[in-house]
Parts: sequence; C-alpha cells; structure tokens
Amino acid sequence: MKLAIYGYGNLGRGVECAVRQNDDAELVGVFTRRDPATVKTLTGVPVYAADTVAQYKDQIDVLIICGGSATDLPKMTPMLAKDFNVIDSFDTHANISAHFAAVDAAAGENGHIALISAGWDPGLFSLNRLYASAVLPEGKDYTFWGRGVSQGHSDAIRRIDGVLDARQYTVPIPAALDAVRAGTMPELTTREKHLRECYVVAAEDADKARIEREIKEMPNYFSDYDTTVTFITTEEMLRDHAALPHGGFVIRTGKIGLQRDHTATIEYSLRLDSNPEFTSSVLVACARALLKMRARGNTGCKTVFDIAPADLSALSAEELRAHLL
Amino acid sequence: MKLAIYGYGNLGRGVECAVRQNDDAELVGVFTRRDPATVKTLTGVPVYAADTVAQYKDQIDVLIICGGSATDLPKMTPMLAKDFNVIDSFDTHANISAHFAAVDAAAGENGHIALISAGWDPGLFSLNRLYASAVLPEGKDYTFWGRGVSQGHSDAIRRIDGVLDARQYTVPIPAALDAVRAGTMPELTTREKHLRECYVVAAEDADKARIEREIKEMPNYFSDYDTTVTFITTEEMLRDHAALPHGGFVIRTGKIGLQRDHTATIEYSLRLDSNPEFTSSVLVACARALLKMRARGNTGCKTVFDIAPADLSALSAEELRAHLL
Repeated sequence: MKLAIYGYGNLGRGVECAVRQNDDAELVGVFTRRDPATVKTLTGVPVYAADTVAQYKDQIDVLIICGGSATDLPKMTPMLAKDFNVIDSFDTHANISAHFAAVDAAAGENGHIALISAGWDPGLFSLNRLYASAVLPEGKDYTFWGRGVSQGHSDAIRRIDGVLDARQYTVPIPAALDAVRAGTMPELTTREKHLRECYVVAAEDADKARIEREIKEMPNYFSDYDTTVTFITTEEMLRDHAALPHGGFVIRTGKIGLQRDHTATIEYSLRLDSNPEFTSSVLVACARALLKMRARGNTGCKTVFDIAPADLSALSAEELRAHLL
Repeated sequence: MKLAIYGYGNLGRGVECAVRQNDDAELVGVFTRRDPATVKTLTGVPVYAADTVAQYKDQIDVLIICGGSATDLPKMTPMLAKDFNVIDSFDTHANISAHFAAVDAAAGENGHIALISAGWDPGLFSLNRLYASAVLPEGKDYTFWGRGVSQGHSDAIRRIDGVLDARQYTVPIPAALDAVRAGTMPELTTREKHLRECYVVAAEDADKARIEREIKEMPNYFSDYDTTVTFITTEEMLRDHAALPHGGFVIRTGKIGLQRDHTATIEYSLRLDSNPEFTSSVLVACARALLKMRARGNTGCKTVFDIAPADLSALSAEELRAHLL
C-alpha cells in the first residue's frame, strides 16, 4: 500500500517511522504547509507543498492526515476525502458526530473511504469500551489516562505570562484504580481519578507564586484537579522531559449470573514511551484495513468500530486462525 | 433475536442467565441429549430432546452449541450448521483449521452463518493478540491464564486411583508477569509462567503419597510445572472450591520509533468470578453480531476476527460514535 503523510509534526514523523515496520507499506511523500525546502524528513522521504497534493492522487492509496483536531482536521479531512482515501486521528469527542457527517458526505460522493478518530483514544480505548460493554451489559466503564504528557495542558500553561516552557503530566490516582478493580463500581469525581503534575520554566524575573496560582485556578484545565507545580531550569526541561510518554487504562466491571451475584472485570491498558509513535502505528494498521474494505466496495466514513479485526493484520485469514485464535 | 441452547451443562446454564441481561434476546428452549423430563432449567425455559431440534428450525435465529471440544463439537457444529445459524466455543487450538473447514462447508452450502471458537480464549484473548500484533509488528506476545480452575486438569486428577474429587487452579507466576511488563521480552519456560495448585479429596484408605506422585509426574498435564498438592475433605471441597473462577492476561510488548528505541506495552486482562457465565455473555453478544452479518448476506463460517465490533453491540452506530468512541 502506498501511503502519504499530510502534516509533518510529531504524529507525521511517527507515521514515517511506523511505515518502515510494515513490509506491505511504502511512503510516497510528506505534504507540508511550510516551505518544502525547509523541511527535512527523518528518513529522506520527499517533501511536497500541501497545496499540490491533488496532483499526486493517482500515486497514493491512503493519505494519513496529521493535523490538529481543533482547527485543522474539521477542514482538512472533508476536503481531502474528495480526492483520497483518508485517515485522521480527530479526538474532540464532543464534535465527532459533526465531523463524521462532513467526512462521510465528501468521501461517499467521490467513491472514497475515510476513517476518522483512529489512534488509541479515540481508537483502541474506544474498541475496548465497546467490546466490554457488549459482553457485560450490566456494568460500569472507567477510563484513566496517564501517566503521560498532555499537550493541551502543557500549551495552556505556556500561555501564562512569564512562562517560557511547560510540561504537564496527567497521572491516574492509584487508590481510584484499585477501587475500580475491586469491582465495587465506585462513583469517582474528576479530582479523585487524576492528578496533574506541572513542570514549568519561568522567566528570570517572573512572579512564580502568581504563575502557580494561575495554573491551579485555571478553569476546565486545572481547577477541578489536585495540581502540583514544580519550577525547573531549561536544562532540566530538556534533560528530563523531552519524551512524550503516555498510556492509560480502560476498565469495565460487570455483574453476571442468574442473580447478578458474580463479578467480571475487563481491563485494558497501554504503557507507551512515545505517544505519537504508537498512535502512528495504529494509523498504519488502519490504512491496511481501509484498503481491504475499499476493495470490497465500501465507501464513505468509517470508525474503528466498523473494522473487522482481521482486516488490520498483514496475515491471511488462515494464518490468523492458525496462530492467533 | 430468538436463541436456543444445545447442551445444558455449566455453559448452557450460563447462556440461560446471559440472555436475561440482553433486552433484544429471547430464549426459545434448551435441547438436551438427556431425557428432557429429568432436566430442570434455572429459569423455567422449556426443555426438548436434542434429536427433535430440526423441528424448531423456523423458530430459532441462532443455536448456541454448548458441547465439549474433544468429541461433541467436531460432530455437532457441522451437523447443526445445516439447519441453523450456530455458535460454538470450540477451544482445541490445534484442530481449529479442520473444524473451521467442516463448519464452513456445512453452513455455506445451506445458506447459514456460523461462528466457531467464541468466548474469551479463544475469543476476546484472540482479538487482543490480533489487535496488538497488527499495531506492534515488531514485538512479542505473552498469554497467561488464571488464577482459575482448569476443568481438564481437574478431570485428569479425578481419573487417578483413590481420588474422589479434585480441583486444579492454574496460577500465573508474578515474577514472570513482571518480567514481561518490564518490556525486556524474556523467553519464559512453561515452568516459569504458571504454577499448578491441586486440591484433592482422597478415599479414606488411599495412599496419598502415591496420588501426589502420580499427579506431579503426569506428562503434559503436570510434569512440566511446579505443582502443589493439598489433600482436603469433601466438606472443604464443597465449601471452598465450588466456584469456577478464571481469567488471565494477554500482553504484547513491542518496539517503535526510528531506531526502535521506544517500547510500547499493551495489556489485556480478565478477572472472572465465573468462567462459564462470562463465556456465555460473550456468546450472546456474538449471536447478535452474527445475525447482523447474516442480514447483510454473509454465510459460511466466521471467527471473532471477522466481526466488526459495532455488530456486537445493541447500540446504533450513531450511539456508539456519540458515547463510546
């Protein structure tokens, strides 16, 4: 399969690496909104201007769109679905229905197939929420994130006056995880589920007490959480916080049996040294599935819920039954 | 959907309970090879003779076959797939290809759809092996079972002279689990992965030392494991070992990134108070998926790898995208 990357940030670089781990995948090029002459890829794959992408439509089986969910993807994915089979990792949960409708119309009208919201959450975590709720109709779901870097929260801190750099880790609280695993189906508040750990490089003359207060009182981002703020140097930031680890847990506990007197607990967890590299690995497997579905005549917008698992694998149905079933 | 149970043991009773937790499912009856007059169901659902099942074929959407993998299912599932859409939980991994071929022929020729090897292993564990290997092509899989009762191993002990009753627990060894989770991709021997804990009721005059030796030296079942044997009374057996708990872990660690210098760990685990009741819950969700696939024109034999996750759920595609994605 011939893949191309549209948007070359952390996720785009991750896709570039992931393609090399899949023998049936080949990278045609990277499309960027920057001046292509200024962009150097990790592996030497060619770089083209984003606005020339339509010229390459006969050479690309699936275009993997690596833009941001806030402003890029709502425009990019429907636009590009007119000329390409596309995948994105749109993750603004509240707007998924609208995004799906826009992409479905664009892809469907032009005979293409599209997959939105692929990755791990939404993505693998969503799949596990679905499988677990289908199998345990009477139960309760919990999703915990971390320990990992939240880019959105890190960016929010960086916008505070006097902050030079920041890194925010979302940390699940062990006592909450234990309570969930015990099968008692607790009601947990936002504050009980996650901590927020902030590492901040402040300008030399900045008022650190004010910065710490502004972080801890920031609505939506921090005010509902127990938050720690640690001031560090630029050197410490580069040395100790350069990686983008992440992960989390999806747990469902349910009641089974004649009197619902037995408990079943299903737990799925990820521990990722690199969030963008792992997300990219999911996107490449999804590209494979999407092409198999397109070859069977499917068009329009899909989600991971629509992908038969076998389609994600490079192995044949016979090999899967023999070795993985 | 109108379901029926063929074979009324622990699994059949589990299906009877699971159906009650799914509003879109209804149980038509239980078919047994015993004299129906001697079989009393948990919920009062009618009992019929197994050899009359074909008379009910217009009243049953999916027949859930609850027989044993060793001798029952290889005959039953192909035979019944001629008249019904069927599901079984065939779990003899080495014979899955042959079983698939036989069921595929019978179902396909008669316009039915069949699902073999549903449950949790094979089943949910298989799905997680597939997803994890598709996403992390360069990695290593580990499956651990337990802590839980192995019926096969319990039966093997019961066949020893002087044994009145026995219960065998398969126990994953924590040090092995920890080594796997650490991402070092260790090579583990059979003995390093699981312990076998045996609880045995011996006849009053039996030679316990001989029984213990026969257990520990039994090839395939015990000789490759560290095994403990504890003699207990019939009362202790009934009081402490009546339940059928089980569970386990599927873990894949893989390398990602340009130099494969980052690790990702995917872990899936189940903790089940009742193995048959949970397996049954999976079978009922699969019945729903199978009928949706049949309605789209699919026939022949399938496995969980062929089921698009959305088909397992009673929720609509819109609801799934809004609430679980």
